[in-house]
Amino acid sequence: MKPLILVTNDDGYTAPGLLALVSAVKDFGDVVVVAPELGQSGMSHAVTIKTPLRCTKVADSPIVVYKVNGTPVDCVKLAHYQILDRKPDLIVSGINHGTNSSISVVYSGTMGAALEGAIHNIPSIGFSLCSDSYDADFTLASKYAKTIVAQIIKHGLPDNTCLNVNFPNIAEKDFKGLKVCRQAKGRWQEEFDKRQDPRGSSYYWLMGYFTHHENGATDHDEWALANNYASIVPVQVDLTNYTAIDNLKKLF
Amino acid sequence: MKPLILVTNDDGYTAPGLLALVSAVKDFGDVVVVAPELGQSGMSHAVTIKTPLRCTKVADSPIVVYKVNGTPVDCVKLAHYQILDRKPDLIVSGINHGTNSSISVVYSGTMGAALEGAIHNIPSIGFSLCSDSYDADFTLASKYAKTIVAQIIKHGLPDNTCLNVNFPNIAEKDFKGLKVCRQAKGRWQEEFDKRQDPRGSSYYWLMGYFTHHENGATDHDEWALANNYASIVPVQVDLTNYTAIDNLKKLF
Repeated sequence: MKPLILVTNDDGYTAPGLLALVSAVKDFGDVVVVAPELGQSGMSHAVTIKTPLRCTKVADSPIVVYKVNGTPVDCVKLAHYQILDRKPDLIVSGINHGTNSSISVVYSGTMGAALEGAIHNIPSIGFSLCSDSYDADFTLASKYAKTIVAQIIKHGLPDNTCLNVNFPNIAEKDFKGLKVCRQAKGRWQEEFDKRQDPRGSSYYWLMGYFTHHENGATDHDEWALANNYASIVPVQVDLTNYTAIDNLKKLF
Repeated sequence: MKPLILVTNDDGYTAPGLLALVSAVKDFGDVVVVAPELGQSGMSHAVTIKTPLRCTKVADSPIVVYKVNGTPVDCVKLAHYQILDRKPDLIVSGINHGTNSSISVVYSGTMGAALEGAIHNIPSIGFSLCSDSYDADFTLASKYAKTIVAQIIKHGLPDNTCLNVNFPNIAEKDFKGLKVCRQAKGRWQEEFDKRQDPRGSSYYWLMGYFTHHENGATDHDEWALANNYASIVPVQVDLTNYTAIDNLKKLF
């Protein structure tokens, strides 16, 4: 039996990045898309529990496509437990229009879907391109997504672990290759854009800029991307800070 | 200057659990509540980027309270960067009506807020009670929340680390105390409730049950709660699976 590959994303089922990812993986197995109806950027690992979910098949050929009125994590859960007739062998999420390196992994809907796969021990990969543009060029990312998918189909991933893959937005001639690395330390500094609506009430747009807090280290994803590599970070679901446990036991 | 304490949650600014937490911390410093207008359970680390945020002061006394039309993480960001006149010394989130132990930390809006504090190196604690009831009894949780807050105000927390505190829903006479532990391995198994609407279209409610995958270990939060302890798990923001890096380097 050919591998069953679930494709999802957080930019919605019509996003060019998703179409690029479908093209990249379609020769590796049976591909089914279950993706959000609307953009879900920044939805992290959110699930929909207060409103009902609807799931509509929107294409049968050449690829089966379902749209869901929920989050990327909802899509993975619905696909796994309701839509697909067997457990998927691989989940790929993306290709996201925009970076998900460093701390952005925590906010990312693309990576929410991949992490949900990891929770169910399904090999899962989130792919992102460092360009927010709708018309971004996914040629390089698609090509190397194939390389990565081929290796993961062959070798699998450790339990409860998925991959966070980010591609620099550069021409292929400048590309240095793939780099396995760790999540860089960093954060988004917020700068809210405060405005007045026509009725005189104020509102805010969430804005911000990313800063990393690394000094000279070269083993993290921000270094890889800044140096024209694609970053591959193994991401896992146990958030425990094990090194803090002994000291905390002295307090409680 | 007294410590500045930000209180938030994911059940909304009127939830009894939040009022219990305000009572628990009000003697430790200047307290400001910035909490969601509506329930945000299951919103994880989601941020609002496609719609504008509004923030309304709804009380001045005895405690300053703002409501926000966004997620718990939005509340922390708005409080930190727009509402408060200085960086908070402590963020407390909760007390959640419902457990956030084991893998639920990943889906939890309560813990999304605490983790956002950790990203900004603000000592942060998420509190949850193992009861979904609106009328849950927060007496025990409030009492021991005070104990925990006192220690963290005095000793701080490691960089980029917050606490995930869960209380069993039991009478105080049965309570065994606080237990520092790790996140239990486990997952939610989904069982969608599929229905027909009055117009004949199908929809789903996300349902499920939690299963943990621990065999006899006693150092995790599910063990603590099942044995009448409150669990205290240090939670951090680096999701890298460091043990997987060397093997992955052989593939790429």
